[in-house]
Amino acid sequence: MDTKFRKKHLITCQDWSKGELDTVFEVAKYLKLKHALNEPCNLLKDKTAFLMFFEESTRTRNSMEAGITQLGGHAHFLDTSTMQINHGESAKDTAEVLSSFGDAICVRNCFYGIGNEYLRTLAKYANVPILSLQDDIYHPMQVLADMMTINETFGNPRKLKVAISWAYATSHAKPLSVPQSQILMFTRYGMDVTVAAPKEFPLMSNIVETAKENAELNGGSLKFADNMEDAFRDADIVIPKNWGGFLGVEDPATAEGKAQMKMNLEKYKDWICDEKLMSITQKHSIYMHALPADRGKEVENSVIDGRHSVVIQEAENRIHTAKAVMALTMGGR
Amino acid sequence: MDTKFRKKHLITCQDWSKGELDTVFEVAKYLKLKHALNEPCNLLKDKTAFLMFFEESTRTRNSMEAGITQLGGHAHFLDTSTMQINHGESAKDTAEVLSSFGDAICVRNCFYGIGNEYLRTLAKYANVPILSLQDDIYHPMQVLADMMTINETFGNPRKLKVAISWAYATSHAKPLSVPQSQILMFTRYGMDVTVAAPKEFPLMSNIVETAKENAELNGGSLKFADNMEDAFRDADIVIPKNWGGFLGVEDPATAEGKAQMKMNLEKYKDWICDEKLMSITQKHSIYMHALPADRGKEVENSVIDGRHSVVIQEAENRIHTAKAVMALTMGGR
Amino acid sequence: MDTKFRKKHLITCQDWSKGELDTVFEVAKYLKLKHALNEPCNLLKDKTAFLMFFEESTRTRNSMEAGITQLGGHAHFLDTSTMQINHGESAKDTAEVLSSFGDAICVRNCFYGIGNEYLRTLAKYANVPILSLQDDIYHPMQVLADMMTINETFGNPRKLKVAISWAYATSHAKPLSVPQSQILMFTRYGMDVTVAAPKEFPLMSNIVETAKENAELNGGSLKFADNMEDAFRDADIVIPKNWGGFLGVEDPATAEGKAQMKMNLEKYKDWICDEKLMSITQKHSIYMHALPADRGKEVENSVIDGRHSVVIQEAENRIHTAKAVMALTMGGR
Repeated sequence: MDTKFRKKHLITCQDWSKGELDTVFEVAKYLKLKHALNEPCNLLKDKTAFLMFFEESTRTRNSMEAGITQLGGHAHFLDTSTMQINHGESAKDTAEVLSSFGDAICVRNCFYGIGNEYLRTLAKYANVPILSLQDDIYHPMQVLADMMTINETFGNPRKLKVAISWAYATSHAKPLSVPQSQILMFTRYGMDVTVAAPKEFPLMSNIVETAKENAELNGGSLKFADNMEDAFRDADIVIPKNWGGFLGVEDPATAEGKAQMKMNLEKYKDWICDEKLMSITQKHSIYMHALPADRGKEVENSVIDGRHSVVIQEAENRIHTAKAVMALTMGGR
Repeated sequence: MDTKFRKKHLITCQDWSKGELDTVFEVAKYLKLKHALNEPCNLLKDKTAFLMFFEESTRTRNSMEAGITQLGGHAHFLDTSTMQINHGESAKDTAEVLSSFGDAICVRNCFYGIGNEYLRTLAKYANVPILSLQDDIYHPMQVLADMMTINETFGNPRKLKVAISWAYATSHAKPLSVPQSQILMFTRYGMDVTVAAPKEFPLMSNIVETAKENAELNGGSLKFADNMEDAFRDADIVIPKNWGGFLGVEDPATAEGKAQMKMNLEKYKDWICDEKLMSITQKHSIYMHALPADRGKEVENSVIDGRHSVVIQEAENRIHTAKAVMALTMGGR
Repeated sequence: MDTKFRKKHLITCQDWSKGELDTVFEVAKYLKLKHALNEPCNLLKDKTAFLMFFEESTRTRNSMEAGITQLGGHAHFLDTSTMQINHGESAKDTAEVLSSFGDAICVRNCFYGIGNEYLRTLAKYANVPILSLQDDIYHPMQVLADMMTINETFGNPRKLKVAISWAYATSHAKPLSVPQSQILMFTRYGMDVTVAAPKEFPLMSNIVETAKENAELNGGSLKFADNMEDAFRDADIVIPKNWGGFLGVEDPATAEGKAQMKMNLEKYKDWICDEKLMSITQKHSIYMHALPADRGKEVENSVIDGRHSVVIQEAENRIHTAKAVMALTMGGR
């Protein structure tokens, strides 16, 4: 374990050493036990975390806010529309001012081509940790909870076969951050990853390159498929989830860009995780989803509510991993 | 007193035994004294209550949030528009996920025909208490504060004559939940209740039936009048307040339904609580209102600001009863 | 020092004695040291401050909320659009009800001709402190942080030459409250103040009269200029900032009023604080701004990010002075 975390930013887990990640998982387990025992655990007494949300959230906000409460601190939920960001407040000013008031700046900004850059700019000027609550490229808090859930289920992740699959959904255009964070993390822990997606829905090429290097260095593998079956066959873990199709789209914020993305989306209504697909996985396989799932489109109810599903355990682990990250980066002096 | 409260839901007081309600009133009195003495009282140290609001609130939100602060815990104010409920999040998912993060899920959802059902669904899947902050049928937190205020004023509620009257207002279409919770509660405590309302503004018939049974079992009575005078004459307690007229309205959310309700409303502008009406009540009578009152329409300023009015005491008791409910249902392990 | 603060309102510092203000500055310094040492300081254990915002905020909200957290209490951030103020809730009702729930009511309401009156009405009915977070006339929390920053920089404020200058900005029409609070405060501490502004952008005449009296009684001075150079020459402190031009505007909320204000504004694009202006101030001069600054319009980047700038120290002092005001007015019984 590496344990020098003070003021470390978390924008992507790729920036953290495996020793540091191992420490996060150990601390998360320790905090989960302490919580089960109802032991007081005021590691962040009277500390403040700012939670800046440019988008909606249930799990992320509440796991952070309840998490820091359990640690004796307090989170400010900042709907950015109530801030002076519209009044010409620069990222530099926000970072420097909030640094002087509190102990961490946590941000969700998923705007395509903008979010990660915004976080990197904050990190340049802040002297407290910048903790990503998801951007357009990465979702470190989600993948930490995913990895913890896999560790709890299987003990050792090495050589597990995992299917990360695109799925159909109409609820909203979801960012690439979840599958991208997963392929980066899982390959570092020696897992055999297959990504299934229609050709219009690729992940970012530089992320794929980095994940391939991760696999090579750590004894894992990364493959691609153009159908769900090839990924699901004999899988230990399946993670079918929608993400946006940005290939060849000039600007996804324009009406034209949206129409193009919608047209591609509608070709693949049959990409749903159903009982039949689950039947070709391992008997002991687990179904994971970051939630909220688009029921009846991404996944059948009988799967997400059935015996393979670990989505509630996965969601619960959000709070334990979030507490670990906060306690490690914000604690002490 | 019944004292086995752990993880008990509060969706309507009708679901709770009189022994349990008595315990709430005793605990509320105890907490009010402790607060007056400024004694620390950390019964909910580092516990989290989620406050989900589908509608606006002043008293309910702030009594819950300040209340749990005084008990050493923390509330998350969740404007549901900032959650992922619009992104396909089901009540089941919300209940299970928030249960794993915190210690109670408190909800205001007054949408007609929807609110109570939403709370009942949450209760089915949550393993922490679901505490209603008002729905389309019930407002348990309000009626607990009302009952506490009556107990403080009169000592014993038995045989008190109470007028629950409809009144004119234009500020917004108010739910039936307050008068309905009141007729259910007051009849259980042996009070003589008269409900006055124009014929287009009836309470729900199943609620009226249950209240009649309550009266029969507990020595109270429930009568109806079509004018304010008959209810106010010799009353110990008057509670004139607007509520919506849903009789014969197919869907109150449509423009047609709204027009129909407005037309009925405008017939009864003279249903205002004024000095003349107060003069036919008992000398010692009290005027109650859940606030905010539509001044000049529901009630004359000289009444709500005058010697009969206990509205501020009634509002203050919201925090003491809310603390009692939270401490009893969320406390311990 | 005067130290009898319990339940004192802070709507303008002009209402407070110099002895009381001196106490605020001493306590702010003490709390800043304790924070640097990470010493626990639970002066407001489990106390509640309500933060009612009619407008956006970054510094004010977060300094108050993080500040009371560091003191062991809790702030409710109340976006007033989520309250029942639109449902006919009067200032009297709000003041009386929130007084019964918590320990201070803090309000930002900058609506022209409305804000200060709203706060004064709350103060009439509340029995907890009303603390202004800015209104249409005053911004006491900002000027306390400004004064603390000046004290830290120069030791003794007497005879310091300060330029308070209007500057061009398009980000939004800023209230008069900051410069008005500054001329009132600085003249009480014997400073030599010059206000520079185009003729269409005067400060309120009654405020100017009071500031002149302050100067006379305390050995300071108050002068006016119609250009930036005259104010900046040999200044120890420069505070160039945009404010609204209300002269001759009937109603700034109407389209006509806005057009008139915009027309006046556009005449003065060259009122920007640049390097050339800074070069005619004292070598040791400091540049102050309440933030957010309209970069490139109010001020050049090289000035606000340069060696004269103390804007981050000034912003940080917001939390120390806010904590001092809260601890002094809300503490004890």
